[in-house]
Amino acid sequence: MDIASLRAQHPDHWKKACAIRVLTLDAVAAANSGHSGMPMGMADVATVLFEKHLNFDPTAPLWPNRDRFILSAGHGSMLIYSLLHLTGYAQATLEELKNFRQWGARTAGHPEYGHLEGVETTTGPLGQGISNAVGFAMAEESLRARWGAKVMDHYTYVIAGDGCLMEGVSQEAIGIAGKHQLSRLIVLWDNNGITIDGKVELSDVTDQKARFAASGWDVFECDGHDPVAIDAAITAAKASPRPAMIACKTHIALGSSAQDTSKGHGALTDKQLIADTRAAYGWENGPFDIPADVKAAWEAIGARGAATRAAWEARLATLPAGKQAEFARIFAGDAPAKLASVIRGVKKAAVDAPKKLATRSASEVVLTAVNPVMGETIGGSADLTGSNNTKTADLGVFDPINRKGRYVFWGIREHGMAAAMNGMALHGGVRPYSGTFMCFTDYARPSMRLSALMQVPVVYVMTHDSIGLGEDGPTHQPVEHLAISRATPNTHVFRPADLVEVAEAWELALSSKTTPSVLALSRQNLAPVRLTHTNQNLSARGAYVLAEATGKRQVILIATGSEVEIAMKAREMLEAEGIGTRVVSMPCMELFAQQDEAYRKKVLPAGPARVAIEAGVQMGWDRWLLGERGKESKAAFIGMTGFGASAPADRLYKEFGITAENAVAQAKALI
Amino acid sequence: MDIASLRAQHPDHWKKACAIRVLTLDAVAAANSGHSGMPMGMADVATVLFEKHLNFDPTAPLWPNRDRFILSAGHGSMLIYSLLHLTGYAQATLEELKNFRQWGARTAGHPEYGHLEGVETTTGPLGQGISNAVGFAMAEESLRARWGAKVMDHYTYVIAGDGCLMEGVSQEAIGIAGKHQLSRLIVLWDNNGITIDGKVELSDVTDQKARFAASGWDVFECDGHDPVAIDAAITAAKASPRPAMIACKTHIALGSSAQDTSKGHGALTDKQLIADTRAAYGWENGPFDIPADVKAAWEAIGARGAATRAAWEARLATLPAGKQAEFARIFAGDAPAKLASVIRGVKKAAVDAPKKLATRSASEVVLTAVNPVMGETIGGSADLTGSNNTKTADLGVFDPINRKGRYVFWGIREHGMAAAMNGMALHGGVRPYSGTFMCFTDYARPSMRLSALMQVPVVYVMTHDSIGLGEDGPTHQPVEHLAISRATPNTHVFRPADLVEVAEAWELALSSKTTPSVLALSRQNLAPVRLTHTNQNLSARGAYVLAEATGKRQVILIATGSEVEIAMKAREMLEAEGIGTRVVSMPCMELFAQQDEAYRKKVLPAGPARVAIEAGVQMGWDRWLLGERGKESKAAFIGMTGFGASAPADRLYKEFGITAENAVAQAKALI
Repeated sequence: MDIASLRAQHPDHWKKACAIRVLTLDAVAAANSGHSGMPMGMADVATVLFEKHLNFDPTAPLWPNRDRFILSAGHGSMLIYSLLHLTGYAQATLEELKNFRQWGARTAGHPEYGHLEGVETTTGPLGQGISNAVGFAMAEESLRARWGAKVMDHYTYVIAGDGCLMEGVSQEAIGIAGKHQLSRLIVLWDNNGITIDGKVELSDVTDQKARFAASGWDVFECDGHDPVAIDAAITAAKASPRPAMIACKTHIALGSSAQDTSKGHGALTDKQLIADTRAAYGWENGPFDIPADVKAAWEAIGARGAATRAAWEARLATLPAGKQAEFARIFAGDAPAKLASVIRGVKKAAVDAPKKLATRSASEVVLTAVNPVMGETIGGSADLTGSNNTKTADLGVFDPINRKGRYVFWGIREHGMAAAMNGMALHGGVRPYSGTFMCFTDYARPSMRLSALMQVPVVYVMTHDSIGLGEDGPTHQPVEHLAISRATPNTHVFRPADLVEVAEAWELALSSKTTPSVLALSRQNLAPVRLTHTNQNLSARGAYVLAEATGKRQVILIATGSEVEIAMKAREMLEAEGIGTRVVSMPCMELFAQQDEAYRKKVLPAGPARVAIEAGVQMGWDRWLLGERGKESKAAFIGMTGFGASAPADRLYKEFGITAENAVAQAKALI
Repeated sequence: MDIASLRAQHPDHWKKACAIRVLTLDAVAAANSGHSGMPMGMADVATVLFEKHLNFDPTAPLWPNRDRFILSAGHGSMLIYSLLHLTGYAQATLEELKNFRQWGARTAGHPEYGHLEGVETTTGPLGQGISNAVGFAMAEESLRARWGAKVMDHYTYVIAGDGCLMEGVSQEAIGIAGKHQLSRLIVLWDNNGITIDGKVELSDVTDQKARFAASGWDVFECDGHDPVAIDAAITAAKASPRPAMIACKTHIALGSSAQDTSKGHGALTDKQLIADTRAAYGWENGPFDIPADVKAAWEAIGARGAATRAAWEARLATLPAGKQAEFARIFAGDAPAKLASVIRGVKKAAVDAPKKLATRSASEVVLTAVNPVMGETIGGSADLTGSNNTKTADLGVFDPINRKGRYVFWGIREHGMAAAMNGMALHGGVRPYSGTFMCFTDYARPSMRLSALMQVPVVYVMTHDSIGLGEDGPTHQPVEHLAISRATPNTHVFRPADLVEVAEAWELALSSKTTPSVLALSRQNLAPVRLTHTNQNLSARGAYVLAEATGKRQVILIATGSEVEIAMKAREMLEAEGIGTRVVSMPCMELFAQQDEAYRKKVLPAGPARVAIEAGVQMGWDRWLLGERGKESKAAFIGMTGFGASAPADRLYKEFGITAENAVAQAKALI
């Protein structure tokens, strides 16, 4: 349908959609950067979605039962900023639109979660939004099953572009959604045939409809500029018993001279082009000036949801007080009051009956105690359930015939799993954790970074955390992965040494409201090192003195996880030679770095030689050891300098010199 | 077809296939670890492939025109080890099979490139092999177009499992192969319906045949135990004008009591189970004992290719001597003799006419000079061609109608791109480089790690390497990514400061035969800092004195890339106050770390205060600065402590304090 026909046939719709288009042109021109074409192309679809389908209330942006709207094609951020402004979200002021992409503005280049109410997730790295959305939809299914449709009953809508669909993670998301028959998930594909480098066909000939259908989706299509066709497609998609994809045929940068070109993808800032486009739209008002009737029409759309929200609140209020409090607690992300005592119980039991245990098994012990008292947890694994020890008996399996199940078989999809966990956590009401081998941090990286950036407290259960994995060899042995996660801002990397520290790490991870946690856990059995009970969570300060030197303190051994046992053995040998040796366990470097200088100096006083032991690369350790400043630093690192190898774990530890004997030798050479 | 019928109808085939099966059982039993089920399930398919189709010669494992066989389902490593042993590869001795998964053995837990001839690529991290294979097939197409079918004319075969197909990267690979109509690529899917957690349907309901077809593949299927059906399917796939996928219906752990179960996926070590399985096979010989007739039959298969290889060598010998030398050079991975003079020319011209230039643009200047003299380069970008500056005018575009083109529009597929580059480099004869935004290192990570582990010298052109990217905001601004690549063993991270250093970095990257390079390049324009010409490649030592202190040296400023300009400005300000200041440019930390202590101390002598400036996280810098050992270290770091923000680049540098003024203040506080 051409512009003239659209204007003539649907004049009211046209004006509302053009409000999005001109705000986009205006904001991009003001910023002199941004992406004009996508909002201009998808304005009609978004208008119909917000006007006729999306259940939302700008006065209550966090209302738990709202429909979720996710702009997976995050570069088209002016689409959502325009929508939030027009429908009346208080934070989305005209001033913010004018400050698009400027320092301190809520209107960042890509939509950033936490910057602006109404933005449900951070998007921009392509493929993430559609994959988050799978998690949103799973959270909704889970909560609906367990709390009833009375309090949880909503849709998740996604706008995705060709970039999202080309990223591999989208396939993982499509597979998960298809398997789980997530019928409340509706993806609106901006089928404009254009990418940055040119036409889509330069790099892809995939029949997207056939691809989605192959994974159990229902597929619809529409002219993405015809409001009647759009409405019909969304209506049909909502009625489908499967996840639905609607192929919306659109023109990128509609109505401009850059229409249907890759130029149209980027920032359209040419004055004449903008003027011509406004003329083609029949738009007479100046920049950032929306005609009163159009503004009123949009505000009416924004006002549509208040009654629905009020009705929902009335329904919620009919729940028993205890259930209402529980509902509020899980959506606030607060840990249950019982968590602390459960953790203390695990710690006490561990000390009462110490035994050799892999920390991955220790993690299962903790989860077995925690999951029954923390109904909001949802566990899972990327096809390594028996190895990651993530499934506890009480959880049940989440699938289409048991929506109440709290364990997800994610399949071999680490990236999709991580992205979906982000979505679950952002949805609220659930607290996801899931596992894979630590080496496959690599596969999940893009989503792990977004956990940190968005400040969502998901838990990554990364087992087989070193060469201790053994025979599977270097492709499966993490070496640089502790450093990778530690280098990432706002990420807590826990590498606990035994069951007590594992319990402490889980307590910290499950209590966090703003920081994702990576739990690095051993495959191999470890001797317990925490042999006396304390209620205090010693891991909370990141590092602490595990064993003090007898007599004059000449050496400090610092270690994490599976190497704490080695440090303790080395201490014994050094002490036997009369060399006073302290052992510091450092389960979380980031938390230790956050302590005040006094505490840090108390744990790591100047003077003694320092030897750090960790079966990973040195990067990250120098801060606690030395610079290139000379031998006065009296420090050494025992770990890996390259990739691992395939052999039994004991042999690898010996061959790579990660032994108590080597620690003793290094320490003696320094003092 | 049941075992009894198979044995009865195809007794010779059965015995050959069972040789693989029993060697697998024996080696896994000896190692007491490994994966038995996959080789037992796919033995028939592999036997038919090697017997009737694969063009190979065990006496010449690196013969350039051999067919490539890639075991994407790398956990089934005993399949390829058995095949290499049975067909007579010298390195694949019986002793090696007996030492499966042991220290120093060539038979690692997963197939490791470089450990054992006949292993074309390292597999194990799922989805990598099938994605490497796309690169192998592209290299073959490219070389066939440019050198003629006389010297390059082979197939690439892949065995992939459900794990490979669930990983998102496989979708990227499928999309690339479909677009490019890689008709010499044949994927044999081990359709056994089982993953580690149980049945595939626990996590996936995808119709894989429909999925491949949706991206332009031809799809075939066969009973994966019936040699006639397998042969027919492979024959049809070879004739197809498109990439082909053969769905091979198989039984994992065929013939054992663990058949068709997830238990069968892992190590079958139970003695009774093994004995029963051997009995079911009708196998009477003991462990590692292959009957003479079966051994002879396999050796005949191994001998099949010698004549073909000899004929190829005769054809190669008909080329002009210069062409033969060139063919040998590109397959040896040697840089052309001209490279050095071309680089010197670029450096000289840069110094003669210094100007402000983004290092990504500088990279284009270098490639414009290099590509015409280095015909083996193949460039590309993950849909950011204009931003990554990776396309030079002479390359032409690789696609089905122009196989001679040397530029690839990869689409929005960083992971698939990286994996395919690995495949290209492993194939030999081509030297791939490709670009994306540096932040999307995250998407490519699994394959970037494998570049390092396999020692393939691909080049990652990572532009927009800091907050200097500006308005696109924190999702697009790398902060931890320099640290991530630096933490990875055997990876050279170059962060050049201007055109001269960019030329030096490219020279080092394109001369490497064993190390991948990451080029971190700026979006924003930078002032040149190398103002006098030298033929010497100063970047080769990793760091060097760019500007010496006037008078007493009190401060050393160390910087990389876009921050070298800031360091130079700070030096000017400090010198103006009479504070002698040296500036060290450190374009490659890894190369500097490899220098002897004398050189390192010459560049970074003890004494002066040190201030490092880099718009990334501190991790990795402490080695060159200080530990937690107290103020005597006299050092400071100026960089990022968290994620970036959306705003113009200049503003971000000011807000985050990455300025000459701050460097001056920090330096003065230290002295």
